[in-house]
Amino acid sequence: MEKTKVAIIGLGTVGSGVARILLDHGDRTGRHAGRTLWLEKAVVRDLAKARDCDLPAGVLTDNVDDVINDPEITLVAQLVGGLEPARTIMLRLLEAGKDIVTANKALLAEHGPELFDRARELGRSIAFEAAVAGGIPIITNISQCLSANQITSLHGILNGTSNYILCKMHEEGGGDYAAAVADAQRLGYAEADPTMDVDGSDAAQKLAILAHLAFGARLNWRDIPRVGIDKVDPVDIQYAKQMGYHVRLLAIADLKDRGLDCEVTPALVKAGSPLGEVNGPFNAVLVKGDAVGPLFFHGQGAGQMPTASAVAADLIDSAAGRTAITFRTLELWSDAVKGVDQADFADSTGRRYVRLMVDDHPGVLAGVTKAFGDEGISIASVLQKEPLAGEDVVPLVVMTHAASEAAIDKACATIAAMKSCRSEPVKMWVRD
Amino acid sequence: MEKTKVAIIGLGTVGSGVARILLDHGDRTGRHAGRTLWLEKAVVRDLAKARDCDLPAGVLTDNVDDVINDPEITLVAQLVGGLEPARTIMLRLLEAGKDIVTANKALLAEHGPELFDRARELGRSIAFEAAVAGGIPIITNISQCLSANQITSLHGILNGTSNYILCKMHEEGGGDYAAAVADAQRLGYAEADPTMDVDGSDAAQKLAILAHLAFGARLNWRDIPRVGIDKVDPVDIQYAKQMGYHVRLLAIADLKDRGLDCEVTPALVKAGSPLGEVNGPFNAVLVKGDAVGPLFFHGQGAGQMPTASAVAADLIDSAAGRTAITFRTLELWSDAVKGVDQADFADSTGRRYVRLMVDDHPGVLAGVTKAFGDEGISIASVLQKEPLAGEDVVPLVVMTHAASEAAIDKACATIAAMKSCRSEPVKMWVRD
Repeated sequence: MEKTKVAIIGLGTVGSGVARILLDHGDRTGRHAGRTLWLEKAVVRDLAKARDCDLPAGVLTDNVDDVINDPEITLVAQLVGGLEPARTIMLRLLEAGKDIVTANKALLAEHGPELFDRARELGRSIAFEAAVAGGIPIITNISQCLSANQITSLHGILNGTSNYILCKMHEEGGGDYAAAVADAQRLGYAEADPTMDVDGSDAAQKLAILAHLAFGARLNWRDIPRVGIDKVDPVDIQYAKQMGYHVRLLAIADLKDRGLDCEVTPALVKAGSPLGEVNGPFNAVLVKGDAVGPLFFHGQGAGQMPTASAVAADLIDSAAGRTAITFRTLELWSDAVKGVDQADFADSTGRRYVRLMVDDHPGVLAGVTKAFGDEGISIASVLQKEPLAGEDVVPLVVMTHAASEAAIDKACATIAAMKSCRSEPVKMWVRD
Repeated sequence: MEKTKVAIIGLGTVGSGVARILLDHGDRTGRHAGRTLWLEKAVVRDLAKARDCDLPAGVLTDNVDDVINDPEITLVAQLVGGLEPARTIMLRLLEAGKDIVTANKALLAEHGPELFDRARELGRSIAFEAAVAGGIPIITNISQCLSANQITSLHGILNGTSNYILCKMHEEGGGDYAAAVADAQRLGYAEADPTMDVDGSDAAQKLAILAHLAFGARLNWRDIPRVGIDKVDPVDIQYAKQMGYHVRLLAIADLKDRGLDCEVTPALVKAGSPLGEVNGPFNAVLVKGDAVGPLFFHGQGAGQMPTASAVAADLIDSAAGRTAITFRTLELWSDAVKGVDQADFADSTGRRYVRLMVDDHPGVLAGVTKAFGDEGISIASVLQKEPLAGEDVVPLVVMTHAASEAAIDKACATIAAMKSCRSEPVKMWVRD
């Protein structure tokens, strides 16, 4: 069987997992690629560091030039995180004539256009299944399996850390945020600094990549409106639970006549619905296509072997020759593809959960409902809770029928200005 | 852009859907294939019949030789159902040098080895995404996206008709089977003769195909043990519901040291679990891989456009050149692939639901629990219901811990022989 010589750059958690698949399951990868995937080099920063995979002699190196200057290495799993030196390494690898597989979503969200352009110019390919949703093959499914569809909507739970924390708070009927974060850190689901996960940045980067694939949208991930779970009050998780909903951090891209509605935000999702039943540190994506209808994927969005599974599948596809075809036809971030623009966020419509803290006085409810009515917002239900112990403010939960973001914002501003309103109104989408 | 000339054979529901995608969305299919997919011919039995798609002049024909003898047509969607003349047409198309896309699972389950062998000999390819689970791209996911994994388990809801009927009966707390079938027929979810759907044959054919892809197993679908939903008593759906379970027709393939456990059978699936929440005429597949872990797919398993979506994706993959690579490396049903054998069904183990109808006399429960104990079966819970109105028999539901099929069968035989046992014990798997 012919050989494809492969290098791995970055032998962290995922890189070690990929090395193990290549070394331990050469029969499997070879059969599917139609050629042997031969691990020739693994580049690390520190040769002395202990690793959880045994490499054959001569494979380990701390010099990336050992890969770049070896013309027999034609395929590289580039698993260095962050923007630099990852970007420079990618460009040098492409210029040296190598096809690349990467899991670095931040790099693609930031420098995708430059990297994909350069790969095209040089007749090379970049595969990135592992960059979004870890073990869920959502990239291949969107770019290949659903290629006969116009995708009309994409709703994802793309950050397992946030999902774990929200589930933990839900289980406890509105548990403490800091305690849930600490718990996620203890279990290895959250980093020491979880900012990018909990503030929605990680999900926004992934959504930017998926929205480009699914809709041709050229989004800077920073332009995607985002609210993180660090802004969620446990009391809202408690009320959502009482009404049969889970709060989930959704990454949303909906194709409308006026453009693409794009957002990362905590939302109420009905219990028993596919996205509502995604529990723990899992990822999920609900895609709708004009031919296929709704299609739902659920799996592990992170972790060593699920991510390595995606990287190894890309290596196999690249060695077999499928990636070159897909990469050429997809025309990622090329000027040849006419995409869709981001729609004005203010015009987004949908049902809303609005929670107010108001004085327990006669006439307050009438004032609140009038504020919604004045903006043409129809109220589906109102839930007035008992006053919190020892306080004279009462929580008031309003579930609206479909209304625009702008109308909801105006109604909330009117209510916030009322003397009887004791804190900023909280609003979230409601999805069934 | 270069053209691939395509023919469709069989312009029924799915064929018309495929024609509509090719005719209405040529830009989309062309962009993804890297070449125009040009509908050159559509072969039908009756030229006069009304159809739900408008074809350009000269496309429609009732002579399959118009396709076979046209060397410019290189790709054919073969959508004629049944075994003959579908098999002969497939062989003639292959011999005429055409790549084939088909949705005919019965044909592949029956004549797959012959057809795939012939395609390989002739250097052609057969793609069949639409043959299993309709719009869910499970074939591509198993054969391409999960290629770095050893798949260890595959549990599917592969027959939407059965699932609709079971859900309908569940909703009504154990509703009437015949009424649910009539309802499914009225809504177009069941054929006039639903035998192949409700007796598990359809699911067994699909499972045979998936088990070959996932495990290399060479199964005759008739050798897969199967129980249909036509054997399910509404009372068991009612009891399952009371205990927090749904009854689902599962197609199961579990890789064990002793071989592949394969079965199509109604089973109790926990509410809130992915397979437990598959409602209505949907399909779903839960795959476990040794690297990726559990991966869950949910979508429309039938219907015009979902199935056409899968056929059209195969046409795009074939025209783009990906299918040729995948088909070559998969070596479907070839002697080159060492697969796994079907395990002895008697050794299958798992938790069981057993429902008995027994006399309402002292000592009966003791006799029943002794029968389980004598076979080393540990009982998880016992639920004795009130006697049915006007009768002196009581339903007794036993939930066991994991036990082998053989042990359960022996215990059930012992109980059935007891004077106090008034009907054949009913047993189903319990899956969480």
